[in-house]
Amino acid sequence: MAKINRTFLDLKQSYLFIEISKRISEFKKNNPEAPIIRMGIGDVTLPLVPVAVEAGEKAFAEMGVKETFKGYEDSGKGYDFLKKAIAEYYKGFGANVPEDEIFVSDGAKSDSGNISDIFNPDCVVTITDPAYPVYVDSSIMSGKKIQYADSNESNRFAAMPDMSQKSDLIYLCSPNNPTGTAYTFEQLKAWVDYAIANNAVIIYDAAYEAFITEADKPRSIYLIENARKCAIEICSFSKTAGFTGTRCGYTVVPKEIALESPDGLSSTITDANAAWSRRQGSKFNGVSYPVQRAAEAVFSPKGQEQIRSNIAIYRVNAEIITKTLSELKIDFTGGVNSPYIWFKCPWGTDSWDFFDILLKEANVVGTPGEGFGQNGKDRFRLTSFNTKENTEEAMRRLQKLMTDRK
Amino acid sequence: MAKINRTFLDLKQSYLFIEISKRISEFKKNNPEAPIIRMGIGDVTLPLVPVAVEAGEKAFAEMGVKETFKGYEDSGKGYDFLKKAIAEYYKGFGANVPEDEIFVSDGAKSDSGNISDIFNPDCVVTITDPAYPVYVDSSIMSGKKIQYADSNESNRFAAMPDMSQKSDLIYLCSPNNPTGTAYTFEQLKAWVDYAIANNAVIIYDAAYEAFITEADKPRSIYLIENARKCAIEICSFSKTAGFTGTRCGYTVVPKEIALESPDGLSSTITDANAAWSRRQGSKFNGVSYPVQRAAEAVFSPKGQEQIRSNIAIYRVNAEIITKTLSELKIDFTGGVNSPYIWFKCPWGTDSWDFFDILLKEANVVGTPGEGFGQNGKDRFRLTSFNTKENTEEAMRRLQKLMTDRK
Repeated sequence: MAKINRTFLDLKQSYLFIEISKRISEFKKNNPEAPIIRMGIGDVTLPLVPVAVEAGEKAFAEMGVKETFKGYEDSGKGYDFLKKAIAEYYKGFGANVPEDEIFVSDGAKSDSGNISDIFNPDCVVTITDPAYPVYVDSSIMSGKKIQYADSNESNRFAAMPDMSQKSDLIYLCSPNNPTGTAYTFEQLKAWVDYAIANNAVIIYDAAYEAFITEADKPRSIYLIENARKCAIEICSFSKTAGFTGTRCGYTVVPKEIALESPDGLSSTITDANAAWSRRQGSKFNGVSYPVQRAAEAVFSPKGQEQIRSNIAIYRVNAEIITKTLSELKIDFTGGVNSPYIWFKCPWGTDSWDFFDILLKEANVVGTPGEGFGQNGKDRFRLTSFNTKENTEEAMRRLQKLMTDRK
Repeated sequence: MAKINRTFLDLKQSYLFIEISKRISEFKKNNPEAPIIRMGIGDVTLPLVPVAVEAGEKAFAEMGVKETFKGYEDSGKGYDFLKKAIAEYYKGFGANVPEDEIFVSDGAKSDSGNISDIFNPDCVVTITDPAYPVYVDSSIMSGKKIQYADSNESNRFAAMPDMSQKSDLIYLCSPNNPTGTAYTFEQLKAWVDYAIANNAVIIYDAAYEAFITEADKPRSIYLIENARKCAIEICSFSKTAGFTGTRCGYTVVPKEIALESPDGLSSTITDANAAWSRRQGSKFNGVSYPVQRAAEAVFSPKGQEQIRSNIAIYRVNAEIITKTLSELKIDFTGGVNSPYIWFKCPWGTDSWDFFDILLKEANVVGTPGEGFGQNGKDRFRLTSFNTKENTEEAMRRLQKLMTDRK
């Protein structure tokens, strides 16, 4: 009889954003006129950048003409034009990433979920707490044991390795979702050293790298010595160029990452690049050609200008939020190198209770920290993905809420 | 230490089409002028249908405007407009498929590969031999035991269930890739009955359903009684509307498919629809909005007319091939309800040898049957995805080859 995968039984029942949607729907049913401002789910609010729109349209037109039509991509790993542009982009901030180690994908979520497939279920996974839920869910689905590295007030929500603990796989996200913190060169070097010492692999989620403003924060893990021997980096066009609904990302899997074969068996696949090639070759057929052309356009000088202008707008919003929190003397991280601001719930409330209070009394939607892990139980995430007007209004309401409830 | 997934060690080293590419490259290096005609990999040759081009362009333009911009899809399962169009399409040939059982995906390959994730590794999988290699590779990657159901001359390459064998999961493809055969209502009913008797789940790949011409061949497994209790159906826009490079497909997972929980444990997920929702919710973020709009357009009256006209062209090619094979008295299946023609290699040669002969002596590329399984060792696949001129020329060359070698 067909059985559900045993690993699925260990998953928590509901996904964070489903519960949030449920609570919002319920509130709206009873308060249809409430002027809700959404600062919860990390979706962008600025449209797709103009260069990407133009390139996407042009590529669709090409698809309709026999001479320029594109069918299956030979490799399914991405067209050379896009991989070349990505490699150039990396060079721009000093990271050397060969084109044949780049895999174009339909987004960072798919890749950070699927990458677990190539590792043996007996690998012990270290995940920061709090973290993006996909790392936990996909590790559970692939039957791996999880241990947590605490991000908390004592380390200003930038978890560091515990040298006494063994790991085989490590998920890191910097700038971090949800805490908004970005690792310094020194901190990230500590993680790379830890990975090398453990012969472990780091899955490095750099989806928010373009938001980094401070010079002591690396925009790629490949700026750290030895990272090519231990780190897979995942990146995305979502948050900078507005690709959340257009869907494109890329993952770098260095050939230098050696993988051990389990049970002392011999294996024809001996590195992570070959393993991921095999996985993608069997279960993926590449990203839509028009989408790849749209992504390529993001790397043009005009495209880079457009995403910088987008980021500048989100950064102003982040400043509005952090300024308000500072004035209210609420402890927070993030907002400087990240679109996320992670703050301590006022009055010692727990994060779901604060969610309800903020929704009901200020009509502002945020994300309860508990949805990202135990260390988020008393924390709350706001995003800068909104208009300046809405961000200002939301902060006025938060200030009023704090005054009213004093 | 990070180990490669143990299951990957059981994969065969190289993917069929990689070996084919290698042999073609080698041949071309020594014969740069050879007028090669490709009738190998199942890629289409007609461009993306005009309605899809237009809808894709329009949707990209929408993405650039704040008011019509689309970010993350709420569910990631596909927009209602597309699921509605798919449900209507099914109704058109008498199958009732509720919209909330449809999952829009980036293609049949991803889904037929990933669907295995939701089933326990101890499930025994039945796969026809020959078959699309993805079924085998993804079953191996997910640690499942495979048994084969023979498609051979005795059943005219339409494998039937062995009632004495137990199964938990069954991969079927009809019209079949590579054999070109389509199950009759009666044959498919036998498989559904077998699945029900075994409490098994059928993964039914219907990517070529639009090629069916004969009235006794069902275009969906849901036209068979009880299929909603045991069958997942996977479909694609690739071969009819020219989406091989645009990437869109859909998978139907009925809520009526109950899944047992392993080891007598209790599970909150009790059916295949909920399990697949959970898998996709954690590892997938939906299909690009412009691509979904392009797919929607395929179901418009104009779109249906355009795909019918495409299929008609491919069908003429299939007739050219089957006519030639008949004249040459070469045994074959397919070509009537399918773009594929599956024939017996002449002179008792094995399929890779015939591949080399056909490439070197006739400059025609096909696909060696062995790439699809043991029962393809003496068989060869040609596709009708080409121009009429090329198809005619290829058949002239085959005729000459047969005469020359008599």
